[in-house]
Amino acid sequence: MRVVVYGAGQLAQMMYLAGSPLGIDVQAVDVNNDTVVHPVSKTPLEISLAQALEGADALTVEFEHVPERLLEEAAKTNKLMPNIDSILVGADRVREKKLLESMQVANCEHQIVTDLAQLDDCVKQLGSKLILKASRDGYDGYGQWRLSDEADLPELKNALQGLDLQTVPLVVEKMVAFDRELSLIGVRNANGDVRTYPLAENLHHQGQLHVSVAPATNVDDALQAQAHDIFVKLAEGMNYVGVLAVELFQVGDKLLVNELAPRVHNSGHWSQSGAVTSQFENHLRAVCGLPLGDTSAIGPSAMVNIIGCSSFSRDLLSIDGSHLHWYGKSVREKRKMGHINVTTNSYESLGEKLMALSKYLPLEYFPKLVGEATRLKG
Amino acid sequence: MRVVVYGAGQLAQMMYLAGSPLGIDVQAVDVNNDTVVHPVSKTPLEISLAQALEGADALTVEFEHVPERLLEEAAKTNKLMPNIDSILVGADRVREKKLLESMQVANCEHQIVTDLAQLDDCVKQLGSKLILKASRDGYDGYGQWRLSDEADLPELKNALQGLDLQTVPLVVEKMVAFDRELSLIGVRNANGDVRTYPLAENLHHQGQLHVSVAPATNVDDALQAQAHDIFVKLAEGMNYVGVLAVELFQVGDKLLVNELAPRVHNSGHWSQSGAVTSQFENHLRAVCGLPLGDTSAIGPSAMVNIIGCSSFSRDLLSIDGSHLHWYGKSVREKRKMGHINVTTNSYESLGEKLMALSKYLPLEYFPKLVGEATRLKG
Repeated sequence: MRVVVYGAGQLAQMMYLAGSPLGIDVQAVDVNNDTVVHPVSKTPLEISLAQALEGADALTVEFEHVPERLLEEAAKTNKLMPNIDSILVGADRVREKKLLESMQVANCEHQIVTDLAQLDDCVKQLGSKLILKASRDGYDGYGQWRLSDEADLPELKNALQGLDLQTVPLVVEKMVAFDRELSLIGVRNANGDVRTYPLAENLHHQGQLHVSVAPATNVDDALQAQAHDIFVKLAEGMNYVGVLAVELFQVGDKLLVNELAPRVHNSGHWSQSGAVTSQFENHLRAVCGLPLGDTSAIGPSAMVNIIGCSSFSRDLLSIDGSHLHWYGKSVREKRKMGHINVTTNSYESLGEKLMALSKYLPLEYFPKLVGEATRLKG
Repeated sequence: MRVVVYGAGQLAQMMYLAGSPLGIDVQAVDVNNDTVVHPVSKTPLEISLAQALEGADALTVEFEHVPERLLEEAAKTNKLMPNIDSILVGADRVREKKLLESMQVANCEHQIVTDLAQLDDCVKQLGSKLILKASRDGYDGYGQWRLSDEADLPELKNALQGLDLQTVPLVVEKMVAFDRELSLIGVRNANGDVRTYPLAENLHHQGQLHVSVAPATNVDDALQAQAHDIFVKLAEGMNYVGVLAVELFQVGDKLLVNELAPRVHNSGHWSQSGAVTSQFENHLRAVCGLPLGDTSAIGPSAMVNIIGCSSFSRDLLSIDGSHLHWYGKSVREKRKMGHINVTTNSYESLGEKLMALSKYLPLEYFPKLVGEATRLKG
């Protein structure tokens, strides 16, 4: 079997590595130049994109910001999974909010703004603590603004002056005093079978994911069931096939959907060694029409992103249960270079191992690590 | 980092897949034509063997029958791990027996035969139940003969008439009434650190491995320690770096070494999902000078070889904890096409899962499966 992935980054790479044992050959499309490349070496393969689409059993994406012309071309083959609407929902916060509203899935109170003058009404309706997000191309904290005090509104409007809000509206959300950020990774195949992973807790810094812990601590059956139900409602409503990531805010015992990612997701990387079946394998199983794999956790896991740095001792592998995933990219500020998964048998041990890990890493790049290690050690 | 593997079969392929996350690029050498190929696609890479050796941080092998001229060339670079003597020991039963004797490691009573006339003395010394093995190029039951009754000796001599025993002597062993076949996979790095996996129990049919169960049932600490001690004695004695597989016969509470394989081994494939660190990752860690990974089992596992058949339902993946490893080779009689790993939390559950697995497979190719499933279910 063959799967073509739009996007040639680390997610396509990890799909390739997960697919190979299943006899699934994964090819990647560099969407900057429409070339088909090997997902690991990035070497161009000697076939055209049209030939790759022709030869594929399934087409999928590693990110939602694939140019629409490519998605439309892919959709015409009837091999694109998830479907184009689901991918576009992930790429456009206005579509996303409308979908959540239409399915009555709890999310943050918000308004769509296509004219700066509407911001006054936002403050009236939602209060003066707001988060403003560009509806498209926002990624990892880019294209986001905050209002903390009504007095700053004129200044904010000024900063936003240059934006073409008719083309790219803003989604303006009431800032939620959430307890923590969680995510649910789940998978659905064309038969309608659904499997969801245990909730992960995600620690962000400057808009980027730094650490995930899965299963998240202090999750009771009701909370996990609530997340599962949200997933099923969304995935069925979208007629979704593949892995879908649902980013959530926990407020008391309620979950609000913050964002959807129609793909394998950074907050599911822990599943590579922490779950019976990784999200990458399950995504491929789903899009290839194979039975879904067990999503149970093997033990408490943490995923630590390596962001913007490449210089650290590989001796961190001396920590039992640690696995390095290095993407082989050139280093750039704020760039995800790789991640480290750690799986063990208790949260206390996980905290100890994260603390041990911190000794091998340049901590200025890992601002969340020691705090989380300390919390888990208890 | 880059590792060049002599041999371009499934073991090199699985090393590549294990290496990629560590940032280790694995290249394979097709020893039939000295070309350097991609270990998965087998596409020739555009470099010569000399260039590959030059660019590699480590050289290793996926099988012991690499032509000696290539091994000698590799050894000259001082990058070959394990060392050439260790590899040659695995390729030659006379060397192997001499090594075991010199290290006083318990093995089967035997004699080296370079002339058919010596067989009479073998019968006198070892008795009339003998197994005769060609000292080189024997693999999976080829090049082996049995004597069960002294009366058949003339007939056997006749059958062996054409062999050049001066060049390829026979190792003649007393047939051992062993209780079962076990194997120990272990790994040693250049610092002398050693990790061994739990013993696996191996079920053979017509000289080929069909099923491994790991950790083997009914292994007490003393037996595991005995195997570990054998491994340490051998690996230290050989100054071995990498994964070494030790095939063993259990006779009562004693272990006899049957055979050594200086490489990752089929009876260690269960470690891909059944151990914290797979044998493939640990081999690469060892030859690259990285810390060794935890060899603990996650739960009881079975590895089922797919031999000589390619037609079966992929719905076997509906069994939770099952993982397919398909090598992508064309089907041939007795050829290893892939394997299925199953990991779960009890031997009883493992037996049930193997029984479930048997429903999806053409059982004429899996003669050991149902019996082992029944035994494990208890």
